[in-house]
Amino acid sequence: MTREDRLEAVLATMAAHRSIREYQDRDVPDALLDRLLGAGLRASSSGNMQSWSVVVTRDRALRERLYEPHMCQSMVLDAPVLLTFCADFRRMRRWLARREAPDNFDNPISFAIAAVDAVLASQNVALAAEAAGLGLCYMGSTIAHCDQVGAVLELPPGVVPVVGFSLGWPAEDPAPRDRLPLDAIVHREVYRDLDDEQLDEAYQARETDGWRRYTADPQRRQWAEEAGATNLAQIYTKAKYTRESHLGYSRTLVEYLQRQDFLAGQ
Amino acid sequence: MTREDRLEAVLATMAAHRSIREYQDRDVPDALLDRLLGAGLRASSSGNMQSWSVVVTRDRALRERLYEPHMCQSMVLDAPVLLTFCADFRRMRRWLARREAPDNFDNPISFAIAAVDAVLASQNVALAAEAAGLGLCYMGSTIAHCDQVGAVLELPPGVVPVVGFSLGWPAEDPAPRDRLPLDAIVHREVYRDLDDEQLDEAYQARETDGWRRYTADPQRRQWAEEAGATNLAQIYTKAKYTRESHLGYSRTLVEYLQRQDFLAGQ
Repeated sequence: MTREDRLEAVLATMAAHRSIREYQDRDVPDALLDRLLGAGLRASSSGNMQSWSVVVTRDRALRERLYEPHMCQSMVLDAPVLLTFCADFRRMRRWLARREAPDNFDNPISFAIAAVDAVLASQNVALAAEAAGLGLCYMGSTIAHCDQVGAVLELPPGVVPVVGFSLGWPAEDPAPRDRLPLDAIVHREVYRDLDDEQLDEAYQARETDGWRRYTADPQRRQWAEEAGATNLAQIYTKAKYTRESHLGYSRTLVEYLQRQDFLAGQ
Repeated sequence: MTREDRLEAVLATMAAHRSIREYQDRDVPDALLDRLLGAGLRASSSGNMQSWSVVVTRDRALRERLYEPHMCQSMVLDAPVLLTFCADFRRMRRWLARREAPDNFDNPISFAIAAVDAVLASQNVALAAEAAGLGLCYMGSTIAHCDQVGAVLELPPGVVPVVGFSLGWPAEDPAPRDRLPLDAIVHREVYRDLDDEQLDEAYQARETDGWRRYTADPQRRQWAEEAGATNLAQIYTKAKYTRESHLGYSRTLVEYLQRQDFLAGQ
């Protein structure tokens, strides 16, 4: 395969990404899954420590117990596989203890390092899966409800779930979602704010389509009305992501980091 | 291209990953870089908010100012491009303010969400770059010294650098680094610790090779001796990652999150 073919294959895989929420009733073979997880293992890892791990959950009873922690998203029950990528310094810390080496990985920067490792690996697995024709949907509930997810998956101290996704064969074929324009995301040399006009322009297409899309669903339209949201921005923070929810998730995360032994020195 | 060819291309790109620290004196064309950044934009993003941004730094004077924040790693000067991926709720928050929507993104879970967005995007860009024949080296100093990196890149409140890498055409061709065995990383159904024997086995190959590799360099051998490290585990936490360094980086991160307005409710 030529260099240009390889680049095209990688870019095409990325360009085709969309979240899949409807799955066929068909399993993901172990051999294929192991190839995908092996691709995750090749991702960059701070200090080459691999301070992450992944829990592969197929068992139906366990997925039923994860349904509420994952905010009752149907994929948890309908996809054959759930992958939960964890920041994990436990393995490393056990090895250090056995070699009479100091343990310096019980603090916030260690969590940050391990969380980055976990996300880099998860994205490798996600892209490899999509290249294989599988579909997936990342679930933010993995970290927002890290305590509940951690309890079901029996995560010991030193381990925190960071990202996770459902995985299986797609039973739907949605178009890729819109994105903000690249110019709104990329800063040249140093950070420069868009001016107000550029900012409005960056959100313009999304505001029309996003409002229409959201309120096309009667249940959601009712939520938007009840929350008093009259535009897309207000849907985001009056209906979907409220102050109460985000302060609650924040408390959950900080308390769980404390409990899982990542807040020394704080 | 067949499905299997596409999967092979993606897996081969991932399998070939290694950090590149030596670069040719040759630029990365803007058109190519924009294709890579566009691939980053396709990555999953929580709530499709794209709560991340990337700073592209080519200017030599700026790279010189980033040299010390990045712990004097030669790539900062030798690679033509530095990419710094930031957790960024600033753009979203400005938009919310202009639409009279509440701002609920000044808290730890918002930082976590935005940081995940940034890392997912960075890994897309990294893989696309490697598929194009470019080389890169992730730098953990991006978050360990987030305050200094943020100062040089003029990051305003709401923005925190999370991951970054040097990017350019490789002038070296190192072999991929070793990894822990997949069995040590993957947990089936729920989390289960390796027993002591399995743990020793998982680290065995690394302990022999890693010690030899590290101490082959006279400077590093001297550091190891001065720190009193007599095995690879002790090199990690007596020489490379000390309690002092990690508590310091943790303080830096938490104070910067406070300053950048991500710790409401704490």
